[in-house]
Amino acid sequence: MMQLQSFAAGSWISPGAEARPIYSAVTGEEIARAGNPLDTEAMLDFARNIGGPALRSLTFHDRARRLKALAIHLKEHKKPLYELSYMTGATYSDSQIDIDGGITTMLVFASKGRRELPDAQIYLDGELEQLSRNGTFMGQHICTPLFGAAVHINAYNFPVWGMLEKLAPTLLAGVPAIIKPATTTSYLAEAAFRIMLESGIFPEGSIQFIAGGSGDLLDRMGAQDVVAFTGSADTALKLRSAKPILANSTRFTSEQDSLNASILGPDATPGTPEFDLFIQEAHREITVKAGQKCTSIRRIIAPEALVEPVIEALSANLASVKIGDPSSRETTMGALVSTDQRADVRARMAQIGREARRVYGEDAAPLDQGAFMTPQLFHCADPDAAQAVHEVEAFGPVSTILPYRDLPHAAALANRGGGSLVASVITHDPSVAQQLATGIAAHHGRLYFNDRESMAESTGHGSPLPHMVHGGPGRAGGGEEMGGVRGVMHYMQRTAVQGSPRILSAIGQTWLPGAPKIKATKHPFRRHFEELQLGETIVTDSRKISLEDIEHFAHFTGDTFYAHMDEEAAKANPFFPGRVAHGYLLLSFAAGLFVEPNPGPVLANTGLNSLSFQKPVSAGDSLRASLTVKRKTKRTEEYGEVTWYVALTNQDDEAVATYELLTMVAFKV
Amino acid sequence: MMQLQSFAAGSWISPGAEARPIYSAVTGEEIARAGNPLDTEAMLDFARNIGGPALRSLTFHDRARRLKALAIHLKEHKKPLYELSYMTGATYSDSQIDIDGGITTMLVFASKGRRELPDAQIYLDGELEQLSRNGTFMGQHICTPLFGAAVHINAYNFPVWGMLEKLAPTLLAGVPAIIKPATTTSYLAEAAFRIMLESGIFPEGSIQFIAGGSGDLLDRMGAQDVVAFTGSADTALKLRSAKPILANSTRFTSEQDSLNASILGPDATPGTPEFDLFIQEAHREITVKAGQKCTSIRRIIAPEALVEPVIEALSANLASVKIGDPSSRETTMGALVSTDQRADVRARMAQIGREARRVYGEDAAPLDQGAFMTPQLFHCADPDAAQAVHEVEAFGPVSTILPYRDLPHAAALANRGGGSLVASVITHDPSVAQQLATGIAAHHGRLYFNDRESMAESTGHGSPLPHMVHGGPGRAGGGEEMGGVRGVMHYMQRTAVQGSPRILSAIGQTWLPGAPKIKATKHPFRRHFEELQLGETIVTDSRKISLEDIEHFAHFTGDTFYAHMDEEAAKANPFFPGRVAHGYLLLSFAAGLFVEPNPGPVLANTGLNSLSFQKPVSAGDSLRASLTVKRKTKRTEEYGEVTWYVALTNQDDEAVATYELLTMVAFKV
Repeated sequence: MMQLQSFAAGSWISPGAEARPIYSAVTGEEIARAGNPLDTEAMLDFARNIGGPALRSLTFHDRARRLKALAIHLKEHKKPLYELSYMTGATYSDSQIDIDGGITTMLVFASKGRRELPDAQIYLDGELEQLSRNGTFMGQHICTPLFGAAVHINAYNFPVWGMLEKLAPTLLAGVPAIIKPATTTSYLAEAAFRIMLESGIFPEGSIQFIAGGSGDLLDRMGAQDVVAFTGSADTALKLRSAKPILANSTRFTSEQDSLNASILGPDATPGTPEFDLFIQEAHREITVKAGQKCTSIRRIIAPEALVEPVIEALSANLASVKIGDPSSRETTMGALVSTDQRADVRARMAQIGREARRVYGEDAAPLDQGAFMTPQLFHCADPDAAQAVHEVEAFGPVSTILPYRDLPHAAALANRGGGSLVASVITHDPSVAQQLATGIAAHHGRLYFNDRESMAESTGHGSPLPHMVHGGPGRAGGGEEMGGVRGVMHYMQRTAVQGSPRILSAIGQTWLPGAPKIKATKHPFRRHFEELQLGETIVTDSRKISLEDIEHFAHFTGDTFYAHMDEEAAKANPFFPGRVAHGYLLLSFAAGLFVEPNPGPVLANTGLNSLSFQKPVSAGDSLRASLTVKRKTKRTEEYGEVTWYVALTNQDDEAVATYELLTMVAFKV
Repeated sequence: MMQLQSFAAGSWISPGAEARPIYSAVTGEEIARAGNPLDTEAMLDFARNIGGPALRSLTFHDRARRLKALAIHLKEHKKPLYELSYMTGATYSDSQIDIDGGITTMLVFASKGRRELPDAQIYLDGELEQLSRNGTFMGQHICTPLFGAAVHINAYNFPVWGMLEKLAPTLLAGVPAIIKPATTTSYLAEAAFRIMLESGIFPEGSIQFIAGGSGDLLDRMGAQDVVAFTGSADTALKLRSAKPILANSTRFTSEQDSLNASILGPDATPGTPEFDLFIQEAHREITVKAGQKCTSIRRIIAPEALVEPVIEALSANLASVKIGDPSSRETTMGALVSTDQRADVRARMAQIGREARRVYGEDAAPLDQGAFMTPQLFHCADPDAAQAVHEVEAFGPVSTILPYRDLPHAAALANRGGGSLVASVITHDPSVAQQLATGIAAHHGRLYFNDRESMAESTGHGSPLPHMVHGGPGRAGGGEEMGGVRGVMHYMQRTAVQGSPRILSAIGQTWLPGAPKIKATKHPFRRHFEELQLGETIVTDSRKISLEDIEHFAHFTGDTFYAHMDEEAAKANPFFPGRVAHGYLLLSFAAGLFVEPNPGPVLANTGLNSLSFQKPVSAGDSLRASLTVKRKTKRTEEYGEVTWYVALTNQDDEAVATYELLTMVAFKV
C-alpha cells in the first residue's frame, strides 16, 4: 500500500485520517492512499517569497539549462515510473506517450528557451514603437515573471506528461509551481515529482506537490497567481467561478475535453492513401489510453457516400484490438482508469445512443476484473437534428460517425462542438484544406492536416506538441498552453514601457537606436565578448563611391541591372534619381570599412537581419558605417553572439541603409 | 430634449416608456432621454450572420483602408460633437483628447493594419515550426476572425475615444461590434456613432449601438463572442460572473480604474527639470477630465525628504486651476459628470481621509450649479499601515502623497495597488529606472518613464496610446486593449495548424519552404505583380568561385579579413575549413546570377531579411541561386511588394545561405 505524500512549504506530509483510497485500474484492488490537511497559506508564502525570488534571479538561459538537466535526470530515473503507469491501465505505448513524451516536452522547452529567449531576465516583446517625431520618447513592450505562484491542476489521464507540459513553461518563465494532480493516478505523479525534487536542480520553493485534495488553495488566489487547469468542462466551470479568482482577475487557463472532430476529405475515397490514413488515425484515437484523451476523435465526419466504407473499414480495424493486461507488450488497448469512470462512459453512451445507432462494440466487459471495455462506434444518420453527439463526451473508447453533404456542411458540423481542442482533416487537396481551414479555424485550437506527403512523419491527431498551442475556444476552455515561447508568456506580465531610448535600453538590456553610444577606445572587433559593452560604437572612415566602382562591381558580379548602368532608364524608375550604387556594393564596402583584417575575437559573421535600403547612393556620394553593440547572447563555453546595429550614412549624414549584423565573438578566457 | 436612439438589427429605435433621464454636468438640467426594449437575439443574429461574413470577406488591408476613410469622415463631421462634449463637463482640451484622440487612434490602427498585417484574410503568427526531421510535417500558427459579435461596454468619461479605441481593432480583425456606452454621456456617443453609420463605409451589420440598458445581451454570449468592458471593478466583477460567459469561455476583456502611482526618483530633487516635470504631470492627472480618468495618478510616491517640497509645489500649482464653464477657453478644469458622481467621490474621500491628512482643497463646491469641485490633495504619513489609500479610488480630482524610504520600499508601495493600468517614474537615472522596472513591471500594464530628455515629446502619464498595450493585471482588470496588432488579436482565434508545407502554404496564402515550386515559364523579374504566382521559382545558372574572385573582392571592397586571405589563420577559426569566400561576395554574385538587366516590372530591391550563412564556400565551389515567390502585398496603385525566398546552394546542392529578398514590382495596368 502506497502512502502518498504532499510536499508543502519545504516538508513531506503523509496522508492523514481523511485520506482516500486509490484503486488499481487493472485489478480493482486498493493500492494507495492520499489526502492530508494542508497549510495552503504557508505553501503560497513558500512559493511567492522563497521560490519566486530565487527563480527570478536566474536568466531565461539559466532556467533553460536547468530544465534540460531536469529532463535528463528524469530520463535516467524513469524505469520505476513505467511499473506504476501500468496500474493506471496504460499500455507500454500509452506509458511512453506519458513518460517519455513528458520528458521530450521538457527538452523542447529547454531548447527553445536557449534559442528563442534572451540570456536575460526581461523578454522584449515586439519592436520598438516610434511614439514621437524626434525619437526622444519611444515605446517597448517587455515581459517579466509574475510575482505569484502557478497552481497546476492536472487530469488523471497523463500524470507525467500533464505535469511536465505545464511545469516546463512555468519554470522557464521564472514562476514557482504548486502541482495538484488528479488523485486517481497521483501515485505516478508523486513518484515523478519526487525524482525532480530530489535532484535539487531547481532552487528551493520552485516546486510543491499536493497528493489528495487542494483544500482552500484556490480561495487564496491573488492578482499575481495563475491557475492552469486540465480536466472536464464541469469542474472548470466550478473552479473558475470562485469569487477570489474573478475579483482578483487571477489568470485561469483551462484546457477541457471537447467534442473533437476528424473530417474525411471528399477526395479521400477508398483506395487512396488518405482513406487508409483516416481509418488508422480514427482507430488510434479510439484505442490509445482507451480513448481517455482530451484530444480524442469523438466525431468522425465523412462524406455521405463514404460513410458505409468508413464503418466497414474501421470496424474491421477495431476487431483486431487486443484488450488486456497493460503491462503485456501484446496488448493494444488497456483499461479505463476506474470502474467508476467506465460507469460514467456507459451512461454517456446511452445518451448518444438515443440519436445514433451502435455499429461496433458490445455492452459486456471483455475481462471480469478491472475497468476494461470494448471500443464503441456509433453512426448518427441525421447529425443536423442531433444534439447529444455534439455535446456529450463519453471519455473512453467511443466515437460517432456523422455524414456530410458538402464542405460548408462538414464545417458547420465540426463547429457544432462549440469549440474544441483539435480538428483533423485528411485530404490531399489543398483547396479542400484551405476551404475547411477558413470555415473552422476560429472554432478550434489546433487543426491537423494529413495526407500521403506528411503521413510518414506526422505525429497523430491526438498529440499536442510543445511547439504548438494546445487548448481551444469555448467548450475546450478558451485557454492556451505550450506553443513554445507563447506558453512561457502565460506566466509573465506584458508591460508597455515608455520613455527615452536611454532609459528603455537600460531596462531592456538591449541597446536601442537613439540611446547614447559609447565611443570605443579600441576597435570593437579587437574586444572579447565579455569586454564589449552595450552601446559601444565604432564609426568608420568614409569612402567615396565612384562611377567606376559601380561599373566595376556590376561587371565583376554580373549584376548589370539598368538602375546601375543606364542613367536614362534609371531616372524613369520611381525609386531612383538616376544611376545608383548596388545595395550589395554598399554592404560590401561597409564591411571593408569596418573589418579588422587580423585574427581577433570576432570569429564570423553568421547572418544579417532587417536590412532596409533607405536612400539611393549615387556616384560621388560618400559612405560611412557606424556599428553599435545592440545585444549579447552567450552561445557556448567558447563564444557568444553579438548583434550589431549598423547604420550606413552618406556625406550629409543621411541614413542610406540600416541592418542588424550577427557575429560570433570569442570569450577572453 | 434629445431622444437617444439605439441602432439594432438594422433599425433606429426610439426611447420607450422606461427611458431614463440624462442631466447636463454643467447646469444639472435634464437634456436627454435614453432606453428602450431591445431584441438582443436579433442584434446578435444581425452581427453574426450579416456583419461577420461581410467583414470576413475583406482582407486586413481592405478593412484598414475603410478605417482610414471612417476616421477622415469623422474628422470632417466632428464640430457638433464638441458642443455635446461640453455638456459632459469636459473642457475644450478634455474634448480634444476624447474626440480628436479617438480619431487619431483609429488612424494609427488603419496605418498599422496596412504596414503590419498582410493583404489577406489570415494572419500568420510566428515562424514555421519544424515538427519532423525531413520537413514533410510542419507547424504554423494562424489567426482568423472570431465568428461571433464583439460587445463593447464603455465608460462615461471618454464617450468618443472609448468607442473608437475598441472599435478600430475589432473592425480591423473582421468582427462586428455592438456598442453599449455608459448612459450618462451616451448623447455624445450616439452622435458620433450616427456619423459613422451614415457614412456607409463599413458593410451592413458591422456596427450596432445601444442607448440605455443592454437588457439580456450578456446572457446570450457564446464561445465566439467577445465582451470588452471599461469601467469600475465592481461592475466588471458582476458582468464577468455571468454564467453564460463563464460556461462558454466567452472572452472577457476588462479595463478597470485602478490605484495608479507616480514615483519621484531620488535624483529628482527640487531644482532639477525632473522635479518640475513630476509636479506638472501630477497636476495634469488631477485636473484633466476633473480626474475622471482610469489612468489618473491616485498615489504620488515621493522620497521622504521630498514630500514637503512636493506638497508645496503641487499645492501652488493647483491654486492656479480655473474651474468653470467647460466651453470657455479660460477654464482649465471642468465639472464631474454628475452630482451623483460628485457625491460618490466625496464619500470615498472621507474613507481616504481616515488615513491621510488633506493638504489642499476644500469641501465647498466652487460653483452653485452643476457637478464642480476643487482639486483635493492628501498626505498619508504611514503608507505601510494604511489600506484605504491603496484600495479606495475616488474617481475625481483626488490624489494622495505617500513617502518612501528607498527604492524597494517605493516598489512595494506601488505594488500595494494590487495591479494597475499605469505607473510612472520620473527620473534621469537609468539605474533607478532599471531597478524600479524590475520591481514593479509585473504589477502594471504600462510603465511611463520621463525625464529631461523625453519631456518635450512625451505624451503624459495618463494617455494610453494605440501603439502600446492598455490594461493591467489584478485590480486593473487583467485585460489588454490596443497595443497595435496585439489589440487586433483579441478579436481573433489563434490556431495551431499542422500539415505538409504544401497544405500549410495553401492555407496561409504564403509559400513556405518545402512546398512545391512552380517552374517559371519566363524569368520572374519579367512578370508583373499580378502575374506572379506564389511558389513561382527561378533557378539560376551556377558560377564557380575562384581564389582570384575572393582576392579581387577583398582588395576591391577593402574586406581583407583573415578568413578570406590566410589559409593557416582561417583554419584555426572554429567556423571555417580554410580560406572562404566573403558572405557579401555570395550575395553579390547571386544577384549577378538572377538579375534581369533591362527595365521590367521589378523596380527595386528594398531590403533583405533573415539572412543566415549556413555553410562556408571555398575557392573551387560553385554557387547557384533559387528564388521563389513567397508573399505578395499590394503597396500602392502602381506597385506591390514581392518577398522572395532565396536559397544559395553549392555544387553538392547544400544550402550555403538563405534569406528573404524584398522587391517592389509594378502592376501590369
